[in-house]
Amino acid sequence: MSRLTGVFGSVKYRVPRGFRDFPPEVAILRKKVIEIVEDVFERFGFDPIETPVIEYWETLKGKYGDEVESKLLYRFQDPWSEEWLALRYDLTVPLARFVASHAPPLPFKRYHIGRVWRHERPQRGRYREFWQCDADIVGSPYPEADAEVIDVMCEVMKALSYKRFRVRLNDRRMLRGVFEEELRISKYGDEKTLEVFRAIDKLDKIGREGVREELLRTGLKGGEVQKIMETVEVSGEPEETLQFVEERFGGNENIKAALSHLSGILDNLTHKGKVTVDLSMVRGLDYYTGPIFETYIEEPKIGALAGGGRYDDLIERYGGPRTPSTGVSIGIERVIDAGLELGMFSLNQKTKTKVFVVNMGLEQRGYARKVAEEIRKSGLTVQVDLMRRSYRKQLEYCDKKGIPYLVFIGDRETRTETVTLYIKSTGERYEEIPLQQAVEVMLRKSR
Amino acid sequence: MSRLTGVFGSVKYRVPRGFRDFPPEVAILRKKVIEIVEDVFERFGFDPIETPVIEYWETLKGKYGDEVESKLLYRFQDPWSEEWLALRYDLTVPLARFVASHAPPLPFKRYHIGRVWRHERPQRGRYREFWQCDADIVGSPYPEADAEVIDVMCEVMKALSYKRFRVRLNDRRMLRGVFEEELRISKYGDEKTLEVFRAIDKLDKIGREGVREELLRTGLKGGEVQKIMETVEVSGEPEETLQFVEERFGGNENIKAALSHLSGILDNLTHKGKVTVDLSMVRGLDYYTGPIFETYIEEPKIGALAGGGRYDDLIERYGGPRTPSTGVSIGIERVIDAGLELGMFSLNQKTKTKVFVVNMGLEQRGYARKVAEEIRKSGLTVQVDLMRRSYRKQLEYCDKKGIPYLVFIGDRETRTETVTLYIKSTGERYEEIPLQQAVEVMLRKSR
Repeated sequence: MSRLTGVFGSVKYRVPRGFRDFPPEVAILRKKVIEIVEDVFERFGFDPIETPVIEYWETLKGKYGDEVESKLLYRFQDPWSEEWLALRYDLTVPLARFVASHAPPLPFKRYHIGRVWRHERPQRGRYREFWQCDADIVGSPYPEADAEVIDVMCEVMKALSYKRFRVRLNDRRMLRGVFEEELRISKYGDEKTLEVFRAIDKLDKIGREGVREELLRTGLKGGEVQKIMETVEVSGEPEETLQFVEERFGGNENIKAALSHLSGILDNLTHKGKVTVDLSMVRGLDYYTGPIFETYIEEPKIGALAGGGRYDDLIERYGGPRTPSTGVSIGIERVIDAGLELGMFSLNQKTKTKVFVVNMGLEQRGYARKVAEEIRKSGLTVQVDLMRRSYRKQLEYCDKKGIPYLVFIGDRETRTETVTLYIKSTGERYEEIPLQQAVEVMLRKSR
Repeated sequence: MSRLTGVFGSVKYRVPRGFRDFPPEVAILRKKVIEIVEDVFERFGFDPIETPVIEYWETLKGKYGDEVESKLLYRFQDPWSEEWLALRYDLTVPLARFVASHAPPLPFKRYHIGRVWRHERPQRGRYREFWQCDADIVGSPYPEADAEVIDVMCEVMKALSYKRFRVRLNDRRMLRGVFEEELRISKYGDEKTLEVFRAIDKLDKIGREGVREELLRTGLKGGEVQKIMETVEVSGEPEETLQFVEERFGGNENIKAALSHLSGILDNLTHKGKVTVDLSMVRGLDYYTGPIFETYIEEPKIGALAGGGRYDDLIERYGGPRTPSTGVSIGIERVIDAGLELGMFSLNQKTKTKVFVVNMGLEQRGYARKVAEEIRKSGLTVQVDLMRRSYRKQLEYCDKKGIPYLVFIGDRETRTETVTLYIKSTGERYEEIPLQQAVEVMLRKSR
C-alpha cells in the first residue's frame, strides 16, 4: 500500500522508517480529500484552529494510557532547555489544553486537520507520521452534540463517495455497568476497567483468543473473562440491542445513563440507518467517558476509517472548568488507501496545470511568456518552457504530465498576435485565433 | 505582535516558548492567506508535494552553515532506534533529498507549504515554529527559471494586496568575483567566502559596525574589510548597477557569469520595475550558488517577507545527478504580521458559519435540525443550538460570533413548515417564508 499513497526513499538519504514523501499525484489527491472533509466540517459550523506539533511531555502525560505513553509516543529532550517535549499523538489532547488555556466561548466547535506521530509498526494503513481530521463540540453535555459529530462523520464518508460504510456505536458506561453487575469489577477500581477496555480494543488485531489471554493476564478469573467475552458478543440493530441490555441490567446507574444518552443520540441522528450498537467496540484511548463510535467498511479490512467519542473530564485536567465534549477523528491515510483500493480515487492526476504554451523556437519565448501571463489572469494554470527544449520535447513533457490544453506559438502566431489551440482529449484544433477566444474555449471546456 | 497572530498559553499547561496556538479568527485568516499563495503557485504550474517534518540529522547536516546547525536546528535522538533525527529547518533541503530519491521528470516545479522549526530568540516576526510557502523549479539552469520564481514572488505579494513592496536582486558570484579581484580572497578558500556572506547577511540585524567587527573576527585585515564594506554599498537601478560592476570588474569570470545571468533574469521579468540590484543582499544559507533575491517593504520593518535563490549543487550532494535549481520561500508569519499592521488583513472573522437556525423552544429542535440539514445542502455553513439554550442565549452566541443570517423556528413556522429569516446587516426580515426562498435569499446575499 505504501507504494500507492506514499513513496519511501530509495537511496542513501531516505526518510525515517514509517515516514513518507508524497509526490504530486499523491499530494494532489490528498489535498482534494482534505478539502472535501473541510467543506463538510464547515457546513456544520466547525471552525479551524492550529496548535503546535510539539507539546510539553507534561501536557500529554497520563491522558492516553500506559502502553501508548511508554511505547508509542515520540518524546525527546529539548536540546537547549533540556525540557521534555513530545510530538502530538492526536489532536484531542491538544484541543483540551487549548480550551483550558484560551477559554473560548461555548459551544466551541472546532476542526483541526494535521499530522500526528505514533511509533507503530509500519504496515498497511499504519504509518508513524499520519494525518487526522478532527471535528469536536466542546461544551455540550447533550446527546444531540454526539449525534451531530456522528452525522458529520457520515456526511464526510458520503462526500468522499463511500456508500457501504457502517457505524458502530457503544457507550463505555454500558460496559462499565455490565462489569459492575456481572463481575463486581468496580471493586477492582477504575484502572482495571481501563485495562479491560484496552484488551477488548485489540479484538480486531489479536482475535478472541488473544483478548481472552490478555484479560487473564490482567488477573481476572476464568469465569469473569468468560462473562466479558459473552458481553462483547452483544451487537445488533440499535433499539433491540438497547432493549436487551435494559432488560438484563436496567437497574444499574451506569447502564441507565448510557441507555438514555444512546437513545438521545439515535433520536437526533440523520444517519440512524447506518448504526449498529456493538458492545465489543471500546476505542483504545483512556480519555473517553461515555458514548463512543466508529465508522468502518467490510472491504478492504483496514480498520476503522474514523472514530471518536465523548470525553467529559479531559479539559478539567488542564485546570479548566468541567467542560463536557465530544468529537470525531477521521484518518486520512486509511480513507485514501481504502478509496484507492476500491477504485473510488485514483492517482492519475499528475499536475494541476491545464495549459502549456508551446514555443516552436527560442525566438518565440518572449511572446509565449506574455501569452501565458494573459491566460493566467483568467485563473487557468499555465506553464511555459523553462528548459529551452525543442517543441517536440515540450510535447513529450506535456504528455508525461497529462496537460490537456496546448497553446502553440510559432512564427505566424507571433507575427499576427494570435495563438493556435489544441485540445488533446478531443483532437480539436483552432488555428491562429485571438488569445481571448482561446481562453474562452479552455474555460468553457474545463468547467 | 504575538497577541495578533497567535496566543501563548496562559495557564499551567502552556505551549513551549516560541510556539503558538491559533484560535479560529487567526486560523481563518491564515487559511485565506495560504489559499491565495497556493492559487498563484498553481497558476504558474507548480504542483504540491509533502515531505516528513522529521528527517535524519545526516540528511540536513552540512547544508545550512555551522551557526545554523549548532544553534538553530532542532535535533534529537529517536527514543527507540537511537538514530539522530531533526525537525526540518526549511523546505529546500528536503526538496533536494526528495528529488535525489524519486528522480521526478524535469523540470520539476513543486510547491510546498508547511511548518519549519528554528531555535530563534522569539521576537516580532520570529517564532520557533513557523510556516514557509516554497515554489521551486528543479532542473533548469536558465535565467528564465529564476525570473519566473521572482515573478511568482511578486504575484503572490500583489494577490495578498501588498502594493509598495520592492525586490532586491544579487548574485553570489558577483561578490565572489569582487572578493577575488579586490582581496584575492580566493586564496582563503571557499569557507572564508561563506563566512563573509554570513557576516554581511547580518547587516539588518547588527548594523554596519557589527558587520565590520564580525569581518575582522574572521581574520580579514582592516583594508580588506574596508573594501568589502564599500562593495556592499553598491545598490541601485538594475542596468546602471550592472554596468558599474562590469566596468570595474568585467574581466573576472565569476562576475561575467553573474552579469550575464542577471541580465537574462531582467530580460525575462514581468515585474522588472520592482527590482533593485543590491550587493549587500547575500541571504543567510550556505547552499545558494548564484542569483539570490528577496522581497521587502519599507514599513513595518519586519525583515524580508520572501526570498530565495539558485542552488545548483544541492541535489548532487544527495547522490542525484547535477540538477540546477532555483526557488522562492514566502514567510507566512511576516506576511500576516505586516499585513495586519498595515490594515490589509483583519481578525474580524470569528467563524465561517453564515447561518444559525434559532429554535424558539426545545420542542422546535427537531424541525430546526431538519431545516439546518436542508440549508447545508445548498453549501451554506449552518449551526443549530446544541446546548438547549433559550432563544435569547442563542442570539447572544450569534452576536458574539458575528453570524450574519438567522433563521427562526417557532411554533408557527413548525406548523406551517416555513421559516422566518432575519438578515443582521440590513435588518431585513422575511416572515414565514418557504425554506427554499430563504436559501435563495441567503445565497444571493452571500455571493
